[in-house]
Amino acid sequence: MNSLTRFSVNQMTVKQLSLPDLVTSCLTLGVGGVGLWREPVRAYGVEAAAALVRDAGLTVTTLCRGGFLTALDPAERAKALDDNRAAVDEAATLGTDTLVLVSGGLPAGSKDLHGARERIADGLGELGPYAAARGVRLAIEPLHPMYAADRCVVSTLAQALDLAERFPAEQVGVTVDTYHLWWDDTAPAQIARAGAAGRIHTFQLADWTTPLPEGVLNGRGQLGDGSIDFREWRRYVEAAGYTGPIEVELFNDVLWARDGHDVLAETVARFLEHAA
Amino acid sequence: MNSLTRFSVNQMTVKQLSLPDLVTSCLTLGVGGVGLWREPVRAYGVEAAAALVRDAGLTVTTLCRGGFLTALDPAERAKALDDNRAAVDEAATLGTDTLVLVSGGLPAGSKDLHGARERIADGLGELGPYAAARGVRLAIEPLHPMYAADRCVVSTLAQALDLAERFPAEQVGVTVDTYHLWWDDTAPAQIARAGAAGRIHTFQLADWTTPLPEGVLNGRGQLGDGSIDFREWRRYVEAAGYTGPIEVELFNDVLWARDGHDVLAETVARFLEHAA
Repeated sequence: MNSLTRFSVNQMTVKQLSLPDLVTSCLTLGVGGVGLWREPVRAYGVEAAAALVRDAGLTVTTLCRGGFLTALDPAERAKALDDNRAAVDEAATLGTDTLVLVSGGLPAGSKDLHGARERIADGLGELGPYAAARGVRLAIEPLHPMYAADRCVVSTLAQALDLAERFPAEQVGVTVDTYHLWWDDTAPAQIARAGAAGRIHTFQLADWTTPLPEGVLNGRGQLGDGSIDFREWRRYVEAAGYTGPIEVELFNDVLWARDGHDVLAETVARFLEHAA
Repeated sequence: MNSLTRFSVNQMTVKQLSLPDLVTSCLTLGVGGVGLWREPVRAYGVEAAAALVRDAGLTVTTLCRGGFLTALDPAERAKALDDNRAAVDEAATLGTDTLVLVSGGLPAGSKDLHGARERIADGLGELGPYAAARGVRLAIEPLHPMYAADRCVVSTLAQALDLAERFPAEQVGVTVDTYHLWWDDTAPAQIARAGAAGRIHTFQLADWTTPLPEGVLNGRGQLGDGSIDFREWRRYVEAAGYTGPIEVELFNDVLWARDGHDVLAETVARFLEHAA
C-alpha cells in the first residue's frame, strides 16, 4: 500500500477542471479516489459521470451534498426531502456509499437553533431508511460555528452525533472535516465516540488560514498553509478505527484561479508532506 | 429600577465619539454604565478619563482589554505580562473591577492549541494575584471559534472555565458574550457552572449577522438585526445568579460610519426592545 492509497480529491478542490479532465489528472497523478458534487455531475449527466469514473477505475468516495433540512414551510420541506431522495439516487448511481449532508441554517427571521436541529432529525427519520435501502449512508457534516446561522446549525461533532445516534449507523453517521473541527478540544473524544459506533462515514482535510475572506466560504487553505496538524487528526480517526478514504476538500478562490492539474499535483504533494 | 439600570455601553460600539462626547451622550440618554478601551483612554489620559467619568456619575463596567498571553518567545512573554500589569493598574485607576482578557492566538508557525492554552494558564498565575491585590478581576473572554488561530485560542465557555477554575474566583472569571457563544448548545450549562462559582464577571451583547465581512472583525450586529435571542441568554445568566451590568459591545463598520449619538440612542432603544 503506497502513501496515496487512501487519498481522495474532492471535486471542489479543483472545480476549474471538467469531469473528464479531473479523471485524466487523477490517473496521471496516481489518485484513485474522488469526492463528487451534485451540480457538476448533473451538468455532465449522472449516468455518464458514473461510467466515466468507473471506466477509469476511480472510486467515488463521497457525493456532496444533501441536507438543508431546516425549513419551516411545509412546501419547502417537502421539496427538500424530494431533493435529498434524488441525491441518494445519484449517489447510488455513482457507486458511492456516502452522501454528505450540510444540514441547513436558520430559516429567515428565526432565532431557534434547537427547533432547527429537531427538524433535521425529522428529515433524517424519513431519509435514513430510503438511503440505506439503496446502499447509501448519510454523513452529517458539522460545519464550523461561523456557518451556524446561514448554512448549518450543526456546529460540533457532538451535535452531529446526538442527531446520528437516533438512527442506525448504516443509515446515519458523520463527516469529520478538520477545517470545521480543529479548534474544538472536545472533538477528539467525539471522534472516539463516532468510531466506536461505526459512524465515521468520511474524513476530510482542509487547512485553516487567515484572514478569512468576506462571506467566509472560499478561504479553505491548502494543506500546510495554515494552523492544522493533520497527522494529529489522522491519529484521532485511526485510533477510532477509521480506515477509509481521506478526502481533501478545499474551497479557495486563489487555488481556483490557477491551473487545475497543477493544483491537484500540489495537493497530492502537500498530502504526502503533511498528512501521510 | 428602570429598564436601563443594568445597561452599559461599551466604548467600541460608538468609537466615533470622543470620550467627553460619549459621556455627554450617556448623560443625555440616561445611560449609567460604560465599558472602556485602553487605547482611547490612554490617548485621553488615564487619570483624566477616570475623573471625567467619575464626575459624570458613570460606572465603568469593564476595561478592555488585557490578555495576548500565548507568545513562545520569553521576551515577548515578559512584555505581555508587563502590559497586562499596566492594564490592571489602568482598570484600578478607572474604578472598574473587571479587566476583560482576549487570550491570544497561535504564535506564528505554531499548530499547538493545547500548548497555547497552557501558556495562558501560566500568565494567569502571575497576573491573578497582582490584579486581585488591586481590586481587579480578570475576565477570560472565549472568542468565537473563527478567531482561534489569530486572536484567541479560548473558543468556548468550557475552555475559559477550565482555565479560570485553576484560580480563585476573585482573581479569574469569564466574560459571557452572546456574539461568541450563541451557536453553542453546551453554553447554557457552562453559564450555570460559571454562575455557581461566582465567575461571571461580565455579560456582553452583540447580534450575529451575515454575511461576515472580510477578516470577520467588524460585523457584529446591532441588537435585533441578527439571529440571537437576547432574552434567552439573559435568562441563562440570571438563572445562574448574575445581577451585574449588561454591556452592549458592537464592532461594526456601518455603525461607526454613522453619527455616534444616534447610534447610542438606537442601541438603547434596541436594548429595551430585545433584551430588557
